[in-house]
Amino acid sequence: MMRPRDGSSEAPLPLGVVRVCGGAPRLALRDGDDVLLASELAVADEPELRAALAAPSLNALIELGPAAWHAIQRAAADPPAAARLPLRDCEPVLPIRVTDFVDFYASLEHATNFGRIFRPGTPPVRDNWRHMPLAYHGRTSTIVVSGTEIRRPRGQIAPGELQLTAQLDLECELGYVCGPSARGPIAIDRAEEHLFGVVLVNDWSARDVQRLEYEPLGPFLGKSFATSMSAWITPLQALTGARRPRPPQDPPPAAYLSAQEPWVLDAALEIELNGTVISRPRAAGLYWTPAQMLAHLTVNGAQLSAGDLIATGTISGTEPGTAGSLAEYFGGERWLADGDEVVLRGQAGAAALGEVGGRIVAG
Amino acid sequence: MMRPRDGSSEAPLPLGVVRVCGGAPRLALRDGDDVLLASELAVADEPELRAALAAPSLNALIELGPAAWHAIQRAAADPPAAARLPLRDCEPVLPIRVTDFVDFYASLEHATNFGRIFRPGTPPVRDNWRHMPLAYHGRTSTIVVSGTEIRRPRGQIAPGELQLTAQLDLECELGYVCGPSARGPIAIDRAEEHLFGVVLVNDWSARDVQRLEYEPLGPFLGKSFATSMSAWITPLQALTGARRPRPPQDPPPAAYLSAQEPWVLDAALEIELNGTVISRPRAAGLYWTPAQMLAHLTVNGAQLSAGDLIATGTISGTEPGTAGSLAEYFGGERWLADGDEVVLRGQAGAAALGEVGGRIVAG
Repeated sequence: MMRPRDGSSEAPLPLGVVRVCGGAPRLALRDGDDVLLASELAVADEPELRAALAAPSLNALIELGPAAWHAIQRAAADPPAAARLPLRDCEPVLPIRVTDFVDFYASLEHATNFGRIFRPGTPPVRDNWRHMPLAYHGRTSTIVVSGTEIRRPRGQIAPGELQLTAQLDLECELGYVCGPSARGPIAIDRAEEHLFGVVLVNDWSARDVQRLEYEPLGPFLGKSFATSMSAWITPLQALTGARRPRPPQDPPPAAYLSAQEPWVLDAALEIELNGTVISRPRAAGLYWTPAQMLAHLTVNGAQLSAGDLIATGTISGTEPGTAGSLAEYFGGERWLADGDEVVLRGQAGAAALGEVGGRIVAG
Repeated sequence: MMRPRDGSSEAPLPLGVVRVCGGAPRLALRDGDDVLLASELAVADEPELRAALAAPSLNALIELGPAAWHAIQRAAADPPAAARLPLRDCEPVLPIRVTDFVDFYASLEHATNFGRIFRPGTPPVRDNWRHMPLAYHGRTSTIVVSGTEIRRPRGQIAPGELQLTAQLDLECELGYVCGPSARGPIAIDRAEEHLFGVVLVNDWSARDVQRLEYEPLGPFLGKSFATSMSAWITPLQALTGARRPRPPQDPPPAAYLSAQEPWVLDAALEIELNGTVISRPRAAGLYWTPAQMLAHLTVNGAQLSAGDLIATGTISGTEPGTAGSLAEYFGGERWLADGDEVVLRGQAGAAALGEVGGRIVAG
């Protein structure tokens, strides 16, 4: 547990923010069961980097770009003893101030399943779906760190009737933490320069609320009560070994969505409900790639900020045991009850993607 | 122009943030053709208030709540000469870091008009509309201050075809800057404690992009390229004389949307296109009130942050000359051209709501 690290060959460490003994938030790297406090590492004495490492969130470090990201990882490869402390002595907090949150709808299987559930009798996937990665903006203020309790929300579940949701669901997603900032458009072959790292996201959903409100402006209160993300962000540079070629797309994507070497992340995910793994979605089956999502999001000139979170949307497969939500897994027979505990985990090649957990408490 | 102010009887001044000679952003109050620099005013020597007045945006002051807001207005009533400088010597910048942006759909007339335009042959207003103030989250990173040039965006205007929008539109809205922060639900009769002030909002829209993308997740790239807001925020406390009783609602609103004394703001707005006023929408005709919007937004437990912006959605009336968008005004015959200049202005009782302007530049 106190082993020294050999920086020459090891993968970059996940980054996060912790409180030690209830103190102020501090940037940290996770090294197995330990954390390394960033401010204690021997980095070059550059004022901008020093300021970023002293900040209460990772946003400033993300803004500095790859040279700074490499500098902190190099320093973490040979940490002074004073930098290291056991993870159990820390309280991880939300690692970024989320500047904007965009939730995509990148799984064809999920879009098909939900089209059938919400719009029976019509074609489940609309004509626009295969031409662009559809998405909507979510609420940033209610993004919470793994471990935060999820209070059952109220909403209108029938016209004019405010009640506690009776159809509380989870959504298993991958999230990409973005930056440095850039004014769009970001060309698809430059997109990965603005993808800092990967987290797991549980986009909790109240299906009865969502169903009543979502036409014509999309999801709102059915989603905005809470979204959980991992405490630790796995740097994209740690995941090069887990890339796979993008599956074919039909029709072929528009030029601004066509990369030279399109890739998806081959992440094996699992959904654990009250201690039992009930589903194992795989991100390699996603239709739209992270680079396509970022290129689309910014093609209209939108500003990207260091600290933006883009998520894939629910990841579901076609095979049994790969559903990314309870609605799909149980077909409406079972929803989350008070006291239920959900943990999402992920592994991408040699890299563990950590976990995002949350327990439902009464509303 | 250099007249002294008599703080005993005058309405609170609008607040904003300015750069002087290209310097750092500074909090300021607008006094006609002058500004008063907040840091130069004689306020109580309280560390939190001092820190808030030295911040680069109004968020921290908003977080401090009404006592601090009153303190700065009292101090502005008797400003030292050093605090005052001509508005023309300042560059107003975005006055808040927008924490979340929620755009409502509160005008029945607008919802009816757009239902007809986007979904001909179906009932224009869906069943859910009269039961709750529908809304979606917009993009915070691309909210810009009045005067910022608006670059014509690209988007898919036919499946797979990326082109400059040919249907660039404006939307005339009122915005409410929210805070202090609170965990929802916020009871409707406490809502106004979290409404700091009012701005004008132009939610620029690319209708051809919006039309192709908005089902089923709502507006996205058709809106997220730019949203303009006023540089100066009129405190809600300056607008008590402009309140009017809320018109009847049918069906009666659910209990959590029923205020003791429901009010709407009687703001007279105008849309100026290239120097000519083409439309005069009135906010008093809005169906949903600001308190209803805030109560609904937070009823599911969502966090409200100091710096949230909630907007009414396009304000349109039933009479000729009261449309809040070009789609409604010209019926699709005319859209914004490069070089077009749009200014929205507002007056609410004795209080001028300032203006929000922008000029279209080629994409």
